[in-house]
Amino acid sequence: MRLCTFLDAGTPRVGRVEGDQVIPLAAPDLVTLIRGGDAGEAGPPVPLNRVSLTAPLRPVKLLGVVRNYALHAAEMREEAPADPQLFSKLVTAVTGPDGPVVHPDVTDQLDYEGELAVVIGRTAKDVDEADALDHVFGYTIVDDVSARDLQATERQWARAKGCDTFAPMGPWVVTADEIPDPHGLRIRTWVNGELRQDGSTGDMLHSVAKLISWFSRAVTREPGDVIATGTPAGVGKGFDPPRFLRPGDTVRIAIDAIGAIEHAVV
Amino acid sequence: MRLCTFLDAGTPRVGRVEGDQVIPLAAPDLVTLIRGGDAGEAGPPVPLNRVSLTAPLRPVKLLGVVRNYALHAAEMREEAPADPQLFSKLVTAVTGPDGPVVHPDVTDQLDYEGELAVVIGRTAKDVDEADALDHVFGYTIVDDVSARDLQATERQWARAKGCDTFAPMGPWVVTADEIPDPHGLRIRTWVNGELRQDGSTGDMLHSVAKLISWFSRAVTREPGDVIATGTPAGVGKGFDPPRFLRPGDTVRIAIDAIGAIEHAVV
Repeated sequence: MRLCTFLDAGTPRVGRVEGDQVIPLAAPDLVTLIRGGDAGEAGPPVPLNRVSLTAPLRPVKLLGVVRNYALHAAEMREEAPADPQLFSKLVTAVTGPDGPVVHPDVTDQLDYEGELAVVIGRTAKDVDEADALDHVFGYTIVDDVSARDLQATERQWARAKGCDTFAPMGPWVVTADEIPDPHGLRIRTWVNGELRQDGSTGDMLHSVAKLISWFSRAVTREPGDVIATGTPAGVGKGFDPPRFLRPGDTVRIAIDAIGAIEHAVV
Repeated sequence: MRLCTFLDAGTPRVGRVEGDQVIPLAAPDLVTLIRGGDAGEAGPPVPLNRVSLTAPLRPVKLLGVVRNYALHAAEMREEAPADPQLFSKLVTAVTGPDGPVVHPDVTDQLDYEGELAVVIGRTAKDVDEADALDHVFGYTIVDDVSARDLQATERQWARAKGCDTFAPMGPWVVTADEIPDPHGLRIRTWVNGELRQDGSTGDMLHSVAKLISWFSRAVTREPGDVIATGTPAGVGKGFDPPRFLRPGDTVRIAIDAIGAIEHAVV
């Protein structure tokens, strides 16, 4: 099942995507639906190409994983942590799948990171790795937009990763039953049509199950939490010289079995 | 005005504290009230000593400030940043003013940080310092509980600062009209009755107005956001040898014009 949030005369509504149609659902937002809210149909189908999609949900918490692909760690000239490491991305950074990302004046090194994002469906605390995937509601795509200069100069990445519009997300959440194994998915990022990242979620150093289990020892995962699982190699900073994003650029990220998001930088 | 959240037969309700009474209010939670929800009275007064207080609100975002008091930076043997630096504390860490703080097994260096917390009342984006305090709804107290070993070994502090129960908060929010200058307040922390921190919010390196204005250039502040403004000297790690928290300890934090919170470590 593909669940989206779309604007209906300016008001966000939850919808189920079937083919080229969106069927409006009763729950007021996707987090409410995830928590057990009314998933019943609540209106006639609307053509998908006639609606404007927002981010599928406003995450309760939005978490990222530090260097979860070996080749990305290498291009950043940093070691990949032996154990998973977490960072927090401010929820006000979340924007729709078509952005745009607003280039803030506080950075000269704006960069993209195409990532598989995991949406938590059930409260997870002290969860074993073997049971961890039972807590996944579904999967979506996020661009973990990053200001590399702020990452270098500020000890914590709240601003480097958390400026407004730094998390385009969508286009929808694909429920976990359709992706029994989240580690066989090709993930690609293009900038202005040029392929920059071409990896597989199978190359993650720490699996989705490991990430959920590991962090659940200390931090409760709640329905509506989103974990961005790290990015493969090919970010702008990895090039010599680096190729950072400028206003006018377009970023497209596609992941097998989910779809694609594409946003401008303005 | 002092606004609290209390449990009424297990259900959280917003209340206005007057003397030793709590007057229940109509808004379902404090964030809704801050956003303009119904502040009308909705029931007979209840004696304050008969109710159980929770955290006054679940913050929309919970942000901390890195080393915002010179003497604390010195005791941590680190430089104070010339410009404010922000970190994000996971909202699932928030607990009531009387805790308890659960000592997780992922740390051996649990520490306290008594802090003045600012509750945002109006959306703040690109705000001038001169206007910044107009965006404050009120003030409360937070213990920015920290796992010093995780702070040292993990690049980002999401876990070091964000484990469950790492943010006891309360006992209430004192509205900004009662605290026109948030920089003349004595702030003290005791552990097991022994005074450990005794500072003044006037010693902040970056004022509340500066913090709001600075970050609003890149990150929208929303009603219900909370900023923990940093801690004065006297944390456990600052002692030689360090004096970390152990199960059985009690932490009390008092700030002039607000009140006090006191929580156990279990």
